Amino acid sequence: MRELLDAVAAGEVSPAEAEAELAGYATGEAGRFDAARETRSGVPEAVLADGKTPAEVADLAATALETTGRAIATRLDPEALATVRDRLADHDAEDTYHERARVLVAREPGYDGPDLDATVGVVTAGTSDAEAAGEAAVIAREMGATVERVDDVGVAGIARLLDRLPDLREHDLLIVAAGREGALPTVVAGLVDTPVIGLPVSTGYGHAGAGEAALDGMLQSCTALTVVNVDAGFTAGAQAGLVARAVDAARSE
Amino acid sequence: MRELLDAVAAGEVSPAEAEAELAGYATGEAGRFDAARETRSGVPEAVLADGKTPAEVADLAATALETTGRAIATRLDPEALATVRDRLADHDAEDTYHERARVLVAREPGYDGPDLDATVGVVTAGTSDAEAAGEAAVIAREMGATVERVDDVGVAGIARLLDRLPDLREHDLLIVAAGREGALPTVVAGLVDTPVIGLPVSTGYGHAGAGEAALDGMLQSCTALTVVNVDAGFTAGAQAGLVARAVDAARSE
Amino acid sequence: MRELLDAVAAGEVSPAEAEAELAGYATGEAGRFDAARETRSGVPEAVLADGKTPAEVADLAATALETTGRAIATRLDPEALATVRDRLADHDAEDTYHERARVLVAREPGYDGPDLDATVGVVTAGTSDAEAAGEAAVIAREMGATVERVDDVGVAGIARLLDRLPDLREHDLLIVAAGREGALPTVVAGLVDTPVIGLPVSTGYGHAGAGEAALDGMLQSCTALTVVNVDAGFTAGAQAGLVARAVDAARSE
Amino acid sequence: MRELLDAVAAGEVSPAEAEAELAGYATGEAGRFDAARETRSGVPEAVLADGKTPAEVADLAATALETTGRAIATRLDPEALATVRDRLADHDAEDTYHERARVLVAREPGYDGPDLDATVGVVTAGTSDAEAAGEAAVIAREMGATVERVDDVGVAGIARLLDRLPDLREHDLLIVAAGREGALPTVVAGLVDTPVIGLPVSTGYGHAGAGEAALDGMLQSCTALTVVNVDAGFTAGAQAGLVARAVDAARSE
Amino acid sequence: MRELLDAVAAGEVSPAEAEAELAGYATGEAGRFDAARETRSGVPEAVLADGKTPAEVADLAATALETTGRAIATRLDPEALATVRDRLADHDAEDTYHERARVLVAREPGYDGPDLDATVGVVTAGTSDAEAAGEAAVIAREMGATVERVDDVGVAGIARLLDRLPDLREHDLLIVAAGREGALPTVVAGLVDTPVIGLPVSTGYGHAGAGEAALDGMLQSCTALTVVNVDAGFTAGAQAGLVARAVDAARSE
Amino acid sequence: MRELLDAVAAGEVSPAEAEAELAGYATGEAGRFDAARETRSGVPEAVLADGKTPAEVADLAATALETTGRAIATRLDPEALATVRDRLADHDAEDTYHERARVLVAREPGYDGPDLDATVGVVTAGTSDAEAAGEAAVIAREMGATVERVDDVGVAGIARLLDRLPDLREHDLLIVAAGREGALPTVVAGLVDTPVIGLPVSTGYGHAGAGEAALDGMLQSCTALTVVNVDAGFTAGAQAGLVARAVDAARSE
Amino acid sequence: MRELLDAVAAGEVSPAEAEAELAGYATGEAGRFDAARETRSGVPEAVLADGKTPAEVADLAATALETTGRAIATRLDPEALATVRDRLADHDAEDTYHERARVLVAREPGYDGPDLDATVGVVTAGTSDAEAAGEAAVIAREMGATVERVDDVGVAGIARLLDRLPDLREHDLLIVAAGREGALPTVVAGLVDTPVIGLPVSTGYGHAGAGEAALDGMLQSCTALTVVNVDAGFTAGAQAGLVARAVDAARSE
Amino acid sequence: MRELLDAVAAGEVSPAEAEAELAGYATGEAGRFDAARETRSGVPEAVLADGKTPAEVADLAATALETTGRAIATRLDPEALATVRDRLADHDAEDTYHERARVLVAREPGYDGPDLDATVGVVTAGTSDAEAAGEAAVIAREMGATVERVDDVGVAGIARLLDRLPDLREHDLLIVAAGREGALPTVVAGLVDTPVIGLPVSTGYGHAGAGEAALDGMLQSCTALTVVNVDAGFTAGAQAGLVARAVDAARSE
Repeated sequence: MRELLDAVAAGEVSPAEAEAELAGYATGEAGRFDAARETRSGVPEAVLADGKTPAEVADLAATALETTGRAIATRLDPEALATVRDRLADHDAEDTYHERARVLVAREPGYDGPDLDATVGVVTAGTSDAEAAGEAAVIAREMGATVERVDDVGVAGIARLLDRLPDLREHDLLIVAAGREGALPTVVAGLVDTPVIGLPVSTGYGHAGAGEAALDGMLQSCTALTVVNVDAGFTAGAQAGLVARAVDAARSE
Repeated sequence: MRELLDAVAAGEVSPAEAEAELAGYATGEAGRFDAARETRSGVPEAVLADGKTPAEVADLAATALETTGRAIATRLDPEALATVRDRLADHDAEDTYHERARVLVAREPGYDGPDLDATVGVVTAGTSDAEAAGEAAVIAREMGATVERVDDVGVAGIARLLDRLPDLREHDLLIVAAGREGALPTVVAGLVDTPVIGLPVSTGYGHAGAGEAALDGMLQSCTALTVVNVDAGFTAGAQAGLVARAVDAARSE
Repeated sequence: MRELLDAVAAGEVSPAEAEAELAGYATGEAGRFDAARETRSGVPEAVLADGKTPAEVADLAATALETTGRAIATRLDPEALATVRDRLADHDAEDTYHERARVLVAREPGYDGPDLDATVGVVTAGTSDAEAAGEAAVIAREMGATVERVDDVGVAGIARLLDRLPDLREHDLLIVAAGREGALPTVVAGLVDTPVIGLPVSTGYGHAGAGEAALDGMLQSCTALTVVNVDAGFTAGAQAGLVARAVDAARSE
Repeated sequence: MRELLDAVAAGEVSPAEAEAELAGYATGEAGRFDAARETRSGVPEAVLADGKTPAEVADLAATALETTGRAIATRLDPEALATVRDRLADHDAEDTYHERARVLVAREPGYDGPDLDATVGVVTAGTSDAEAAGEAAVIAREMGATVERVDDVGVAGIARLLDRLPDLREHDLLIVAAGREGALPTVVAGLVDTPVIGLPVSTGYGHAGAGEAALDGMLQSCTALTVVNVDAGFTAGAQAGLVARAVDAARSE
Repeated sequence: MRELLDAVAAGEVSPAEAEAELAGYATGEAGRFDAARETRSGVPEAVLADGKTPAEVADLAATALETTGRAIATRLDPEALATVRDRLADHDAEDTYHERARVLVAREPGYDGPDLDATVGVVTAGTSDAEAAGEAAVIAREMGATVERVDDVGVAGIARLLDRLPDLREHDLLIVAAGREGALPTVVAGLVDTPVIGLPVSTGYGHAGAGEAALDGMLQSCTALTVVNVDAGFTAGAQAGLVARAVDAARSE
Repeated sequence: MRELLDAVAAGEVSPAEAEAELAGYATGEAGRFDAARETRSGVPEAVLADGKTPAEVADLAATALETTGRAIATRLDPEALATVRDRLADHDAEDTYHERARVLVAREPGYDGPDLDATVGVVTAGTSDAEAAGEAAVIAREMGATVERVDDVGVAGIARLLDRLPDLREHDLLIVAAGREGALPTVVAGLVDTPVIGLPVSTGYGHAGAGEAALDGMLQSCTALTVVNVDAGFTAGAQAGLVARAVDAARSE
Repeated sequence: MRELLDAVAAGEVSPAEAEAELAGYATGEAGRFDAARETRSGVPEAVLADGKTPAEVADLAATALETTGRAIATRLDPEALATVRDRLADHDAEDTYHERARVLVAREPGYDGPDLDATVGVVTAGTSDAEAAGEAAVIAREMGATVERVDDVGVAGIARLLDRLPDLREHDLLIVAAGREGALPTVVAGLVDTPVIGLPVSTGYGHAGAGEAALDGMLQSCTALTVVNVDAGFTAGAQAGLVARAVDAARSE
Repeated sequence: MRELLDAVAAGEVSPAEAEAELAGYATGEAGRFDAARETRSGVPEAVLADGKTPAEVADLAATALETTGRAIATRLDPEALATVRDRLADHDAEDTYHERARVLVAREPGYDGPDLDATVGVVTAGTSDAEAAGEAAVIAREMGATVERVDDVGVAGIARLLDRLPDLREHDLLIVAAGREGALPTVVAGLVDTPVIGLPVSTGYGHAGAGEAALDGMLQSCTALTVVNVDAGFTAGAQAGLVARAVDAARSE
């Protein structure tokens, strides 16, 4: 802050410019879109469709596209998808809908996203981890990382996992998604020397269901894991993206 | 019940005998001791020292010794141990105190305990599982099973476990104790075709500590486990003993 | 593991064979199906329909049928049932849908399932326990056990239970299902010398409803029970099947 | 309220008298003692020693003795007991300390307590229920009921309970105390046509320990129970006393 | 039990009769109906419609009508109501549907229910307590008590309550229903010397909503309350009926 | 911030001054003391003794005294009190220790605290609310409010409360402390048109004890309350002080 | 109360008048409407539509309009809105429906609401806080306060907040709404010397979702906040209105 | 695994060597020490003193020293510290005890630890975060990272944080420790483009105390954080060390 204050004092930066530098958000019908977030915190602003009307999601996505050249919307149902695509139709943008991950990414023709020299492995225990893991993978890719999936290596049949160890060891960071008892990230982190982010998934029923047992187990893991909230694929992917940026920066020095 | 009623009606069983058959407990100063429990339910009555005064534990242990020829007291601190031994001093009984398990077993000279042709493996993830696992092992042995320990095979270094698989596969039943995230029973049950009882241990700190994460994970396990409460070594050992009885009975047919 | 390594070293087992022995799963559209699970852990791989689309369930069931000669799908709604049956129509398999248990079992003509010389009693407190108990019964039967049902013997009228005690005492193992306060397994385990698995059911309302009170009570039981998660009929049945295998093996010695 | 207002309006009751009628408490050093509570709500005011200093308990007990002719102090440790007895030494009162229940009752020589023509049975599952059950018994007796204890009839050996059924059926109301899984009140209420108050006791360990499982089970009971909080012997006893008053009043009509 | 055994031994009671006396339930398509429950425990068996199909409810209601002359079904939706009425159409029974309480009571022409000389007050804090309170009132009435309602006296405007105190004081027992913070039973029990049963209601939102705050508050009440589970109108009414029976019996002596 | 930036740009405020204006904390051995907190947020910085060593508390208190002319330390045990007084002995300060509230306030001779034309009533249900209520009262007074206590007006005897209503109605704001079921703030807020802050107190035992029931009830209150955490007397007092400041400012216009 | 008793005694107030003064509620089909609430407690009675049928809401709204000249209904869905408007159609009232806040306010032509010389700022972290914040704003306005909104200033981009600080500092009280981790009220309260009410919003998913994390964080805040329950916009607005009344009264002296 | 199997098959690796490669742990009196952990998973094995006797800690520490040249013991009380130092006295090792962090590190003379070209910032909100943050810092340093502390920048006075932003932005990764409401990691992560690990600390009291509110808030954070369990300084430090290794490796390419 001191630097900015010095610059303002020196007349090098006008108060209005200083304000703008810290602000940088655009305001549409459906609320503010924080266009500067990627610059400031390294994480792209995405529109979380949960709890918003399709129209609101579409408005925010359009603002994102206009402001940053790219729109990302997560947890998007088919109905909302249609509305968003209608709204973006006159923007001459290309979009991809990741169906299992329920994420839409739209880009303006000239959009040139980040490209990092770093790789992230996204590992799942089983089929039901696909949505959360997919969300994580899309976000890490949008932040520029190379992402590889290693699927269906749950601990009920540990040979499947041991088989894939060489693949797992090649990455700069691993995201490991698991529901039920959530033991996979613990087992993986005991076998590799790569940082592991545990991503608990809201499967399971009865006591400690809906991902609570998985979260509890990852927090109590006897190996070194960091953890995100249940189903928080976006957060896991974003943190992976930030680590990938750090690694890429180090590689580029 | 119908048979007993028929027998009473036929004069073959007196009402008093019928009452006695169902009853069979002894009453001392410190409360009733259910001497018939082993006959009726297969599980020896043990004195849980937690929440009783040393004097109460000693009284109940003495009653047990007099009534059944054996006394078992669990969760016994050194102070209570001394009191119990004082009280049993004039009974001409031999006793063994399992220090890590905190279980005392005293037997009258001629006591002839059960001896089953069945084996139980008791597996631990780490050092801090010793007390609960030890309690389970003592109880299963007192019910007649052959018990073998397999220690320190936690999932943080899975090779230690894979190494011991042949040992694990030789038993009729496994008790697997683990604290923290409690993943070990899940991994073991995926590798053997033996029934596994998960025994969560009250280690761990912070959120879902004190064994809750371990219990949650075992209840949600994607392999086939049955579970007992946190630190419930007695229950795990007793259930193992009952299965061992069933196996022994089948072997003896 | 050592044995396998020795065998590979001795050239008796090729690396590829070793890999296959540990692996043995088939990969279809809807994910991997672990065909080797029954060999490895004694429990048949079943398709849990909850949280999968009917098409995914049908794909996995078809793979199961082709790979192992049998398909088991649990928690199957009528819609999903129709889809699965359509998909299996060209497989020349016979199937049975257990309506209250919501389990489908399909078998190829020549399929020859396991047949164990061991019996399991499945006990319910009331009508609302039928689904979980039914799931347990089907699984135990598919693993080869003889299963007998003893229904409607809840503790609110204890005479109903006392009346059936001789039946209960004839089995090698009992699964006892109960919702609400879940007292039945505790009372049964105090009356028989057979191992009892408590199966809490998600009935009840208000505080500690949805099976939590039943689970809590079974974990705290003053008799020797092992427990599975709320509504985990599959797990209870699989564990019963594993114990039945152990008993059968002992009988066959 | 209308009647009182009418009486005040008519000059039959002075405002000060009206105030006193509603008030009636005495104020000492350690706070107010509500001497009118027994008149107003039928329940004697007792001094809960938990969370008060011995001196505060002694002060409140002395005020109670002076104002109502009787002092009741609950959850009294030996140290506090000595302090209270010192403080009451110059009051020429007789006192009884119920050691297991940890309740002190002191009475002035001429104190003439209530005497009801009604009986309450206080039932326990085991030794560890003695404190809470004892507190309930003392309070019900102090309210005038005849109280009989039926101890050690836990459900792990149901014959002990069936044996005592005739005793249980003779009372106007039953208080049934149980810890661990707390199944006893449910079983009792299914066997008698007497109202049953469930009193959960803070035994048990691990998940849902400290009486939570017992409370949960009683709230979910499939028989008709009312319940008090864990260890709330005072409340159970007071409610039993109120029902005994209602029964006594009916008997006296 | 001893008496029965003596009677069987003496040939006064046949074994079959003894069995019937303890049993007495009827078995229909939808499960067992416990016709002897009212004789044994004083509480009429009612069909809880929650979690049963309309056909099952109708079957059980028909069995109830045929066996005991009366059928009670609770938590009955309009659809289930129609099905039940269809099923009972050929039974020549009269029925009443208590709409707010969602309880159906059907009686055979000659049915002569219990009639007790005892009154129960059912008190509500507000409109949303009507269903639970109504269920309690119907059950208490079916058990023979005279029931009076005192509605809308919540503590937010305490004058409304003070105004009705004379009414409240005239009853042998009060059921007080309240949701949100559930303070009403506490305040009432401080003002009357009648036993009070607290009935928490599942209103409220956010933290501790769905009746948990009300239940917690009643369990922690500084006055003498017994409590039932959230929305457990049946249990509150049944307990009130049992107390009313005790009072009536005393009056009739 | 814009104003400050403008001022810096205009050269009216130097960057260093701007930094100091936002900073203003002093750093001692035991950590930073935020001397500017009162200026910035209206609430005096107090030293929470819980979880600090007596030496750390003493250091922070000395820094506070030197920087602001006053030191406030809360939750101070007698041992820590002695240490703090030793440390302050050479500061020529006067101090007051509020024993029940466990708060120490020390002032330099010339210290001239705030004096507001506004009054706060601090109400308690019973004796055990004294510590939390006392902490609130001291803090509100130190912020300049006139504070009056109204004690022992719990809802178990509502007449005590009704009696004091005129006193309660005279204040600008009320803090109402209550433990157990915590009904008092709800009842008070229904009777006065003054803002009420509910202060739950950690009394109570068993389920929802330690103040949870009180907190739950206040959050669910059917009257308009704001709430602070359990035992958070400081927070309640500080918020009362802020409202008193607002009222005083309005009075002074 | 004493004053009223004196007045009744002096004949200045008739008993009936005294009763009416304390009572003052109107009774319609759908329950009582407490018309005197605003007089007594300063907070207008509002009809909470949640858990009531549209017809009940309409009836209560009509009663409100007739009795007080104004009706406020909260959490009103479009369907209920139509029913209420139909019902009010013949009342010659003007109404406003605040769509995002889901609150309807109807007023009779001559209705003259309160008008206070006090301002309240309602602050939101993001778009999803709009409903709860809107409800708070409407209620505070209906109580006469001037309300200003400051939206979209969440802590993920703190510059947005710092930018609006001068606006925030101009109010007599702030309501700060936030979901997810709920950090905004803490940060705001550290920057202003105005009282802040934290309003947690039920956003967020996974562990501690639905507003629990926000509530927890506000209760644990290291700044001085009072808090209301999750989504309790009405309560926050009402408390703000009461503080505004106190400030207005002080300004008018 | 395939590679290893190939190598064994080719005779390049003996079965015993293969076993050793996967194993590598040393077994002492107090249990196994996993000397190979650092090689395998990148994280040094540390002795967690919690729940072990001083003698056990000393044994394990000696084994560590002998096997790897370094011993790390965490959560070490002064008594245990003395025992460990006694035990290591004859090892000619140098040790450092980090008092606030309660971590002991001992090294053999020639021990040459890792040295990474990567920096980690460890940030605290206040004094009470020192232990957890200190543990994290020591572990990250022992893994070779350069660690810088930024203390006392809690959100109650946000200027302190803004002031230090340039420092925070210079690191490859940040660990941010906070108790109470735990808002600091959220605010920091919104201001920097560095990956942030949130470390919740067990401060706070009342509802959601002991670090639960902090953990909840970090899991729900609207910025991109990964999280470890409450007080899990070791885990945070180890994950930071792993990321630092990845960055260092990239820098060294």
